[in-house]
Amino acid sequence: MGKRSFPLSEVYRLLEPGPVVLLTTARKGRANIMTQSWHMMIDFEPPMVGCVVSDRNYTFNILKATKECVINIPTVELAAKVVGCGNTSGRDVDKFKTFQLTPAAASQVKAPLIHECYANLECTVVDTRMVTKYGLFVLEVLNAWIDPSRRHPRTIHHLGKGIFMVAGKTIKLPSKMK
Amino acid sequence: MGKRSFPLSEVYRLLEPGPVVLLTTARKGRANIMTQSWHMMIDFEPPMVGCVVSDRNYTFNILKATKECVINIPTVELAAKVVGCGNTSGRDVDKFKTFQLTPAAASQVKAPLIHECYANLECTVVDTRMVTKYGLFVLEVLNAWIDPSRRHPRTIHHLGKGIFMVAGKTIKLPSKMK
Repeated sequence: MGKRSFPLSEVYRLLEPGPVVLLTTARKGRANIMTQSWHMMIDFEPPMVGCVVSDRNYTFNILKATKECVINIPTVELAAKVVGCGNTSGRDVDKFKTFQLTPAAASQVKAPLIHECYANLECTVVDTRMVTKYGLFVLEVLNAWIDPSRRHPRTIHHLGKGIFMVAGKTIKLPSKMK
Repeated sequence: MGKRSFPLSEVYRLLEPGPVVLLTTARKGRANIMTQSWHMMIDFEPPMVGCVVSDRNYTFNILKATKECVINIPTVELAAKVVGCGNTSGRDVDKFKTFQLTPAAASQVKAPLIHECYANLECTVVDTRMVTKYGLFVLEVLNAWIDPSRRHPRTIHHLGKGIFMVAGKTIKLPSKMK
């Protein structure tokens, strides 16, 4: 499976529907994965994303220190690994090894892409003013990748307590909306 | 259809999956509706929500001035009205009348609930420090309502350009996640 570059102007179309994502970070050569649903688009282009990471998470201090991460978007085939990553801490385990996920080199950040995810967004932290109060990081997407063979990725959307809605059919309405 | 009070501690389960929402505001007795997908949970309880409203939107100044809104969650039956609200401005039209939606009195804010939406979250703006730079409002949910007859609400999730993913089936995995 070869990933292709994905236009930054279209990144909002990947995150706006609200999928669960896997946030990867790296420090001192050690990579970690965090399951995450608290994210939103902040601007179209360059694509800016807000995401909330609790200071109880191992990822918090790494993201604050390195100011880099990758947002990886999994599909339903990875649901068990997504839950596994959500139920363990990088303090205790190497999640790539434990959940048999494959790290791939990013182009602009040290955090790895997760090969098995259908899309990957390389991000840098551009605003930390809301981090102390809310754990809210403002990210800019520097580069985006997609698996072009996945035309209808069945993303998963967390309803709480391990219950996920799986992306259903799509409908198209005449619209002037971006 | 009678709505029931919904526990604040469970509000994240409504927004975390990333549905399109309809944001209602009111000023000087005039109510407005804005179609919105750029929102995320910030905290569980009291439930805090981040949402981005562009200063090009009619809602922006009203939300900034009144510091109140309601997040209404529609289902696929309302998709045409959701797009209609997204393609018009409250500067020009009364969206409740134009799209035949029914305003209902909220309990703690002046902005109205949209009767036809299966869930309604009454919110107050609690932090405006990111408004000028990003249009990012931090909201606290004061009160929540739900239609208890809607067990599997088919929410819609915007993929851009009038294409929506309709909530599909749900799966449950053993999890310690909240």
